[in-house]
Amino acid sequence: MAKRKIKEQPVILITNDDGVTSPGIRSLVEAVRGLGKIVVVAPDKPQSGMGHAITIGVPLRLYPVDIFEGIEAWQCSGTPVDCVKLAVDKVLHRKPDLCLSGINHGSNHSINVIYSGTMSAAVEAAIESIPSVGFSLMDYSMEADFSAARKYARIIVEKLLKDPIDKHLILNVNIPMADEKQIRGMKICRQAYAKYEEDFVERHDPNNRKYYWLTGKFVNFDAGTDTDVWALENHYVSVVPVQFDLTNYSIKSKIEKTWNSHAKKR
Amino acid sequence: MAKRKIKEQPVILITNDDGVTSPGIRSLVEAVRGLGKIVVVAPDKPQSGMGHAITIGVPLRLYPVDIFEGIEAWQCSGTPVDCVKLAVDKVLHRKPDLCLSGINHGSNHSINVIYSGTMSAAVEAAIESIPSVGFSLMDYSMEADFSAARKYARIIVEKLLKDPIDKHLILNVNIPMADEKQIRGMKICRQAYAKYEEDFVERHDPNNRKYYWLTGKFVNFDAGTDTDVWALENHYVSVVPVQFDLTNYSIKSKIEKTWNSHAKKR
Repeated sequence: MAKRKIKEQPVILITNDDGVTSPGIRSLVEAVRGLGKIVVVAPDKPQSGMGHAITIGVPLRLYPVDIFEGIEAWQCSGTPVDCVKLAVDKVLHRKPDLCLSGINHGSNHSINVIYSGTMSAAVEAAIESIPSVGFSLMDYSMEADFSAARKYARIIVEKLLKDPIDKHLILNVNIPMADEKQIRGMKICRQAYAKYEEDFVERHDPNNRKYYWLTGKFVNFDAGTDTDVWALENHYVSVVPVQFDLTNYSIKSKIEKTWNSHAKKR
Repeated sequence: MAKRKIKEQPVILITNDDGVTSPGIRSLVEAVRGLGKIVVVAPDKPQSGMGHAITIGVPLRLYPVDIFEGIEAWQCSGTPVDCVKLAVDKVLHRKPDLCLSGINHGSNHSINVIYSGTMSAAVEAAIESIPSVGFSLMDYSMEADFSAARKYARIIVEKLLKDPIDKHLILNVNIPMADEKQIRGMKICRQAYAKYEEDFVERHDPNNRKYYWLTGKFVNFDAGTDTDVWALENHYVSVVPVQFDLTNYSIKSKIEKTWNSHAKKR
């Protein structure tokens, strides 16, 4: 008689871009505790705005940290994308079943997805065929209330563990800054077309040389009611499926007839 | 009688990720010399693999450099994306008509588009409604022969100045490492599905603590003959139109019925 194989619990890799000691990653760990074997590999310092940067000019360090009760955790000297790569190759020695990133202190809706270290970690996981979710709360403060974010993180992770969608799945989840009871549920959205209008702050150092601080004003150009910005303004948790095929197929069709060279016969 | 207005020459912003002193950016400047008013704003040191990183924790420096005969040029302490932002806000005080990035030493085909500082500069420009092109030559060496790359850069820029395609246009142009005469022309492509299989090199420092160098093996999973990888292998210049709307519309339609919450009536 065949023995019934005990189903192994899923392995969940958790990372972020605010660093391993941030309240946001602690909230994410607590939100999904018990849903699988959790392993944390996160930056040893804030890495916001790092986008999909990788570290190629200097080597990386990786040290164990004992800050999440009963959970294996590591801090890495690199970017969020480095963390995912190192976690798979040198910590887990296998692909995890799911990669979670966040919970970010501050929103990653609309164009922010491109600058975000939180989302780039999720994108990197999906490139490596690990379904992933990035979570962000629309509140920058260290005292932010993560309770609604924790609730939805758990709902989403339970959903994905029960019914996996795609090995390249990436979800960009943003949670509005609102009381849990005010939140109207989740809404699947597209990325709003928005940008930052730059306005560098110019200062002078003691030697009278100029330096510049990057600042910018967020401008939403998108009036659609199917966007993440709309959903958040209307107290929904926005969920945008993200992809890493950046091909613009519409422009491709438009120009291929006139731009393609004809292959020379030889 | 109305005076005939003299048509102003187009403003072309040039940046890269290998740094303002690299042979590749010099080749790009020379390739398009005479096609407009050229202004260079590029990193003061190599910034490869920076992806879409921006500098938010430290201020930026910007200094004029006199290295391209008769051409205004600046070096910036930030990332390629910072260079585009600073150029528009503090150097040009207007949007240029075109932004060119490169010529990169090394390919940016397939998944490389996501890690590439060269391409992220181009993407940043397009977010700001500046049509842009990133150029990369499949040769890492400092002695690389840029003559074919220069030829195609000029062809493409002349084409875009004559017939603009879209204010959000981004083209990812890769030039094969081949003699100019062997190149069969341009091919409009999609981004191949490929990835790097990580293989960190583990070493020990003099205190016997481990450190890791990121290395990886490029693996192309895509058998299509419409990809950039195929085009380059077949001696074409690959041209992939790129977009910054990362929404995965196919997964969006697949999950919106089951995932969307119904708005609560109040």
